[in-house]
Amino acid sequence: MSVALHESIADQLLEQIRVGELTVGMALPSESKLQVQWNSSRGPVRQALATLRAKGVITGGPGKPPVVSTAAIPQPFDTLLSYSTWAVSIGRTPGQRTLEVALRPAGPETASRLEIDEGALVVQVLRLRFLDGVPTMLERASFVEHVGRLLFDFDTDSGSQWAYLQACGVKFATARHIIDAVPADDVDALHLTVAAGAPLLRQQRTTRSPEGEVLEYHDDRYLPGIVSFTLENTLDVRTSLMRNATP
Amino acid sequence: MSVALHESIADQLLEQIRVGELTVGMALPSESKLQVQWNSSRGPVRQALATLRAKGVITGGPGKPPVVSTAAIPQPFDTLLSYSTWAVSIGRTPGQRTLEVALRPAGPETASRLEIDEGALVVQVLRLRFLDGVPTMLERASFVEHVGRLLFDFDTDSGSQWAYLQACGVKFATARHIIDAVPADDVDALHLTVAAGAPLLRQQRTTRSPEGEVLEYHDDRYLPGIVSFTLENTLDVRTSLMRNATP
Repeated sequence: MSVALHESIADQLLEQIRVGELTVGMALPSESKLQVQWNSSRGPVRQALATLRAKGVITGGPGKPPVVSTAAIPQPFDTLLSYSTWAVSIGRTPGQRTLEVALRPAGPETASRLEIDEGALVVQVLRLRFLDGVPTMLERASFVEHVGRLLFDFDTDSGSQWAYLQACGVKFATARHIIDAVPADDVDALHLTVAAGAPLLRQQRTTRSPEGEVLEYHDDRYLPGIVSFTLENTLDVRTSLMRNATP
Repeated sequence: MSVALHESIADQLLEQIRVGELTVGMALPSESKLQVQWNSSRGPVRQALATLRAKGVITGGPGKPPVVSTAAIPQPFDTLLSYSTWAVSIGRTPGQRTLEVALRPAGPETASRLEIDEGALVVQVLRLRFLDGVPTMLERASFVEHVGRLLFDFDTDSGSQWAYLQACGVKFATARHIIDAVPADDVDALHLTVAAGAPLLRQQRTTRSPEGEVLEYHDDRYLPGIVSFTLENTLDVRTSLMRNATP
């Protein structure tokens, strides 16, 4: 019981930092306030604070009020990869409408992205994704054949491909994300209901197996003004986000 | 001499991973190849590999060829913040043309970003930034008055404001970055020579002192197709990049 409680307290504080209700430099509610708020004894509150301290999210020790030291709450792998997992994590309802599932020979760009021969079979899924019923993103996913074929037994309208493929035993181990801005093409314009040429925020990602084989490539295009990416860095904590320029 | 050598070898391998010449799962050149390439004895090569192993960038040990395990090369604080430092770090020549330096009362949006009262004085700098002489980004920077006034003694055409302000004793400690896509407004269109409404990649950032005071706010807009942001994450290594949705 109290195990669950200290975790709940820590999780809620982390969420308050993540969404910016508690910002860097701000003091946390006092231990006694947290005890009242959670109808808790001192133990779980202190354990929750110790957890945050161990994560490097708050500073301060005995006698000093704990202060938020970073808003950089580390994100688990799935949250950045699965649209459904991400939507749920921010308290929103994910949705999707499948526009196309196709088995076809890879063209030159897809072959290059998936590191396979041109003409090798791939499965491509085009889906419109929603947040709380509102169109938000057009997803173009390409899978190498042995992974993509698993999707023919899956209702791609029903939810997370990512979760389904993992349940099938597909092991995703590393992902490379590229974030840039692109003009909407005709397909984007049609499904996202914007003018051709309108700005879209694009997240490309290449996901690999533990052995380094490319399993999938995504080109996800978000309507602007709805989705953004944020990152906090500090003098002490390096980050792996890189700014890149084309040669 | 050999201290410099093992560092040079490690740096070059890191750079090859960063730019994608060596990708995850790929074996590094053998020790003997590296020795020939660097005209080096075994010691510096082994020391360079030990450095990469300690950074978690390669796996493999004695008897096993070292293999790239992540492309997530941690970036120092400055590289993500200073345009000039970043450009130099990727082997390009940064440049800038100052379009305006103004001392003026903060409007509502600037006041909110800088967490100051509306009407308080701020210094705003509008600069066009270049890579190898080619226009790349339009930078709108707003500084709180006590920081911004330092810039009146600085030739903003001459290089890094960031380096100059640090030399003046300004301490930047944390930064929050927001990456999204926006349509070019009339000012963007004029200086970046694109049509109004054309897609731009925007990086907003808010930089704070060690005490949490906001010192500057940037709204930097990049031409698409030139600059992107990349990130690699893995099952084991969490990342602080967050995908966000407007409420």
